Amino acid sequence: MPPETNAAEYDSQIAVHKTAPDTYAATLDDGWMIAAALNGGYLLSVLGNAIRTRLAEEGERWPHPFVISAYYMTAGAPGPAEVRTQLKRVGGSVATVAAELFQGDTLRMTALATFGDLAGVADDIATTAEEPAFPPPEECFGREDGGPGQMPEFFNRFDMRFPADLVGWALGQPGEKAEIGAWMRLHDREPDPLSLLLYADALPPVTIALGKWGWAPTLELTVHVRALPAPGWVKVRQVSRNMAGGMFEEDCEIWDSSGRLVAQARQLARQPRPDSSVV
Amino acid sequence: MPPETNAAEYDSQIAVHKTAPDTYAATLDDGWMIAAALNGGYLLSVLGNAIRTRLAEEGERWPHPFVISAYYMTAGAPGPAEVRTQLKRVGGSVATVAAELFQGDTLRMTALATFGDLAGVADDIATTAEEPAFPPPEECFGREDGGPGQMPEFFNRFDMRFPADLVGWALGQPGEKAEIGAWMRLHDREPDPLSLLLYADALPPVTIALGKWGWAPTLELTVHVRALPAPGWVKVRQVSRNMAGGMFEEDCEIWDSSGRLVAQARQLARQPRPDSSVV
Repeated sequence: MPPETNAAEYDSQIAVHKTAPDTYAATLDDGWMIAAALNGGYLLSVLGNAIRTRLAEEGERWPHPFVISAYYMTAGAPGPAEVRTQLKRVGGSVATVAAELFQGDTLRMTALATFGDLAGVADDIATTAEEPAFPPPEECFGREDGGPGQMPEFFNRFDMRFPADLVGWALGQPGEKAEIGAWMRLHDREPDPLSLLLYADALPPVTIALGKWGWAPTLELTVHVRALPAPGWVKVRQVSRNMAGGMFEEDCEIWDSSGRLVAQARQLARQPRPDSSVV
Repeated sequence: MPPETNAAEYDSQIAVHKTAPDTYAATLDDGWMIAAALNGGYLLSVLGNAIRTRLAEEGERWPHPFVISAYYMTAGAPGPAEVRTQLKRVGGSVATVAAELFQGDTLRMTALATFGDLAGVADDIATTAEEPAFPPPEECFGREDGGPGQMPEFFNRFDMRFPADLVGWALGQPGEKAEIGAWMRLHDREPDPLSLLLYADALPPVTIALGKWGWAPTLELTVHVRALPAPGWVKVRQVSRNMAGGMFEEDCEIWDSSGRLVAQARQLARQPRPDSSVV
């Protein structure tokens, strides 16, 4: 992992360039496909990168997402995309921006975000959430140990290690608890606040732990980024506590290698339909 | 509680009327003040009501909020306000709308929401979240039992009953656990999906349980409304598990009188400053 390089595939594939005031072009890469759609965390990274780029035009004070909420309208596809931004309030320690990702005339997602500088926040830490007790990565399962057959192209972007007690879904032994977790890291890049938006929607939907395979379309995803992550693996855990009405909430925690809770995310998603076939 | 009347104060005080395409006027009422600002849940109700009204122009299929995310810019004040809406996607079982609340030229809040029909969702319920074990309302503390002195005008809108083990903050005995809860109901009105947006930000900030009095400004609040609430009291519980960097996340659960988890909310807020003096 050469963190000093600028050539990480994630960075090149979320890159944006300004084409008009408040408007940024991107090229969505097919390496982030899950079944027939681009991953929602990847799209959120592209959109977040456009917001960061827009705010940099206003000054240096808001480089990091503090909170972002995305509403997914239609499935993203590889190819050209455009992010249109609108400043809502800039000033003081935070700035708020609306942003939308289009492909052609089709709206893929619409979002709101508040950015600030995580290097400048107070140094108090009083976290009572408990860090998941995963075994060390080398004692967890990797994809080389076998699994549920062909994985979507998306998962080839990461090193992933699954704790034995959270991998029953992959072994044909679903459980009763809606929980899934893994050590994750991008092959060629250390975590940073922006890439936490990717990790917040990178694992399969937690419904898979119950044996419900299939795509679980996200209606809404909100991510709170709470600290600059330390280098190394991140530990990602997703749980659901309320599956009802054909929908479920999915809570995601991201812990960095120093044991700090660096991000919390929650999404509302539709439960997989019995006729959908892939994660 | 006469649910058949149309005269409930909440309804009259969240009322909107159309003044131009996509534009709705409201009059914000000073009965919902918390210290020097209008309560965020009240503002969200006004905004949600405008979205509902806008969608009704498109048809009958989206009367209820499924999920709404609000970003708070500046403190609301009693008096005239305007909600400007923008349809993002209408069709199928859900509709998504952006909405902003202005007073004069000042943006108070900007929001995204997806609405649908909670009467039409699937009937599966697999909730693993545990209902808070509050004693019955008649065994809990009310404001008539004493408390921390003058309560903000806002709390006069509700009947509220506090479980003994969650009321130490009001008795000068703060605890170590960031948790607060109460039975709540509007004096003259049964809960419905829209008013759950109010309950999701109605209790004092959870920081009060730790003895940190003072206003905790909300940066962002997202509410998932998951079911039509039954009539009667709602049980509201707020917890925080990650107080750090001068901010905290606050998770709110709302359970109805039938024991169903009808809404889940999460907000990112700033911790109270030592020099702020009121909830």
